[in-house]
Amino acid sequence: MSKLPLALTMGDPAGIGGEILAKAYAAEPALMAGSFVAGDLAHLRRAAAAVAAAGFGPAPGMALPVALIERPQEAFAVPAGCLPVLQVGEGGRTPGAASGDASSDASSDASGGTAAKAGAEGGSGLVAWGQVQAAAGRMAADAVTWAARAALRGEVAAVVTAPLHKEALSAAGVDFPGHTELLQAEAAVHLGRSLAEVPVRMMLASPELRTVLVSIHVSLRQALEAVTEGNVLQTLRITHQALSRSLGPALGRAPRIAVAGVNPHAGEGGLFGREEIEVIAPAIAAARAEGIDAIGPIAPDTVFMRARNAPGHSGEFDAVVAMYHDQGLIPVKYLGLEQGVNVTLGLPLVRTSPDHGTAFDIAGTGRADASSLLAAVRTARSLLS
Amino acid sequence: MSKLPLALTMGDPAGIGGEILAKAYAAEPALMAGSFVAGDLAHLRRAAAAVAAAGFGPAPGMALPVALIERPQEAFAVPAGCLPVLQVGEGGRTPGAASGDASSDASSDASGGTAAKAGAEGGSGLVAWGQVQAAAGRMAADAVTWAARAALRGEVAAVVTAPLHKEALSAAGVDFPGHTELLQAEAAVHLGRSLAEVPVRMMLASPELRTVLVSIHVSLRQALEAVTEGNVLQTLRITHQALSRSLGPALGRAPRIAVAGVNPHAGEGGLFGREEIEVIAPAIAAARAEGIDAIGPIAPDTVFMRARNAPGHSGEFDAVVAMYHDQGLIPVKYLGLEQGVNVTLGLPLVRTSPDHGTAFDIAGTGRADASSLLAAVRTARSLLS
Repeated sequence: MSKLPLALTMGDPAGIGGEILAKAYAAEPALMAGSFVAGDLAHLRRAAAAVAAAGFGPAPGMALPVALIERPQEAFAVPAGCLPVLQVGEGGRTPGAASGDASSDASSDASGGTAAKAGAEGGSGLVAWGQVQAAAGRMAADAVTWAARAALRGEVAAVVTAPLHKEALSAAGVDFPGHTELLQAEAAVHLGRSLAEVPVRMMLASPELRTVLVSIHVSLRQALEAVTEGNVLQTLRITHQALSRSLGPALGRAPRIAVAGVNPHAGEGGLFGREEIEVIAPAIAAARAEGIDAIGPIAPDTVFMRARNAPGHSGEFDAVVAMYHDQGLIPVKYLGLEQGVNVTLGLPLVRTSPDHGTAFDIAGTGRADASSLLAAVRTARSLLS
Repeated sequence: MSKLPLALTMGDPAGIGGEILAKAYAAEPALMAGSFVAGDLAHLRRAAAAVAAAGFGPAPGMALPVALIERPQEAFAVPAGCLPVLQVGEGGRTPGAASGDASSDASSDASGGTAAKAGAEGGSGLVAWGQVQAAAGRMAADAVTWAARAALRGEVAAVVTAPLHKEALSAAGVDFPGHTELLQAEAAVHLGRSLAEVPVRMMLASPELRTVLVSIHVSLRQALEAVTEGNVLQTLRITHQALSRSLGPALGRAPRIAVAGVNPHAGEGGLFGREEIEVIAPAIAAARAEGIDAIGPIAPDTVFMRARNAPGHSGEFDAVVAMYHDQGLIPVKYLGLEQGVNVTLGLPLVRTSPDHGTAFDIAGTGRADASSLLAAVRTARSLLS
């Protein structure tokens, strides 16, 4: 069987990750078929119970059944309406209530849980909801590492990551600010290259707009320093390659990539800054010489409006390269977080994630919205086609 | 009669200003009643003819009648369906075809023009469409200066400015980058103060969102230098005063003003920049001590989404203070330019303008969209209530 399953990661078990996963499998079994969650069984059962208690289970009083699998391919054998879990990390191997469950449910038997049953598990090896905890950060990181390696080995088709918490990662001694950097490091080891030889970029995509960021989690001052001809050109190359692969066949042409300026009015001919003249225009010219359909620099306050593709408003570009984090994220997030998907470009694996965090304030209430996770699954599948 | 008329300025006569004015008077006579245009009669008649030729006149083949008035109060006597013009600058006093019209039409008689007639005026004292010209810059500046002084003397209630062109102003020897600075200089002279003693801020308002900018037309590097405790606090004071006056009676409380951070995630506790900790938070604390309901700093990529006030999405704030030009303008413009209005806060006069430029590329075609100008008139009236 050459078809590969899709791996989703559990995210920080103190956050809403498990709940949006349970809602996704309950709400859209057809979309989720052939996928599984890499994570901890006991925490995912608790999340399924929380969702059921909030009225989102498959039937009154019933939580979504959680099925333990041992190999990715078993995801295809789990019936629709179950959440398949591949146990990652300590959970399945150490004694205690949480891991005991995992062992006793071994193989791919469905393990149904009710809200009442899952509630009783509280206090027995489970992390608390809504708090930064080293144990939670460790479980989140283990799931991502496992999924990244499985994708790099060719055992899963793509990775969709539920949100993790930076401070919990740090408390667990995991020295990466987030998913992107962790995946980049795994890819570099797999490829036998240095980190610098595996350049990645973050793309935020909504149904209306795709933006790819030259830099992400640095101060705005540092982001200005990162606006170099090399970085802008590299962003254009990565964007062109990724979109040519995913959109190219449907477009029948090279993807049209707008490049935002960095200064108001794109510098107004050098009056409000010279980066457009000295850095961005040369990078665009170099990209065009390579056959990349790069256009700009365009005034930042109108380029996103021009790229916006909505009913009655046809977008002029397939993507916009943004010069810094907020320039690209403000327009993608403006209409709401529900549809935004984060895609990591440049890796030798497909990775998407919802465009929101762990939402510790509502974790455990069953109220979290699964829309962005579902959008991330759809985007991952579209990138594989 | 204590009621004062509203003054609109013609804008650069090589641009779309006259056309959007003609469309506004033709399309919304009730809204435009009690207003007039400060500018040049011949150019406004040409614009009315261009609009008529494009099929937007009051009747087939007829252009909107343009009525010359001599004093602002006469605006109230001009019948609906006419565009009242108060001749400003040289146009009315020098010989030649353009100014000859103005003299012969003296007093408030309506002067109807047809597309054919106006077309014949081309080449006789009129500036060319769509080009940077010193004569055009001069007329645009004269209209703004006249309107500013009339407002400061208490002869008009408010000023709505049609777009001018920075390079044309410069060609005319007018050393201001735009309306805001020109109005600020007039206000300073009127008040007998230095420019620094008349601090102004630009607000962009759409039906969904109001943003007030700490700085405008400077490079992003300079904008970062302008993020000081004094500038942020001054922006909060100006915003609070202006919105308390205009929205306060309806709100029954102080306006709720969100303050954006400058770095990704508002600096993530100092990890991605320290401006939030060292500059913005102290400014917010100082503002709150003065009774200003300032909230933040909030992550730039979510604050505008949270402030967005749309059907089914109630905004959390009455305005957002943005740390630099594009941070505030990207979200206001994202859904389109049609509804955006530029409001100058801090002046001893009410001034609004459409949120677009002279559109030289379509000037003279009659195709320009008057929506943003109409929104600017509505906003000016709402600020006077």
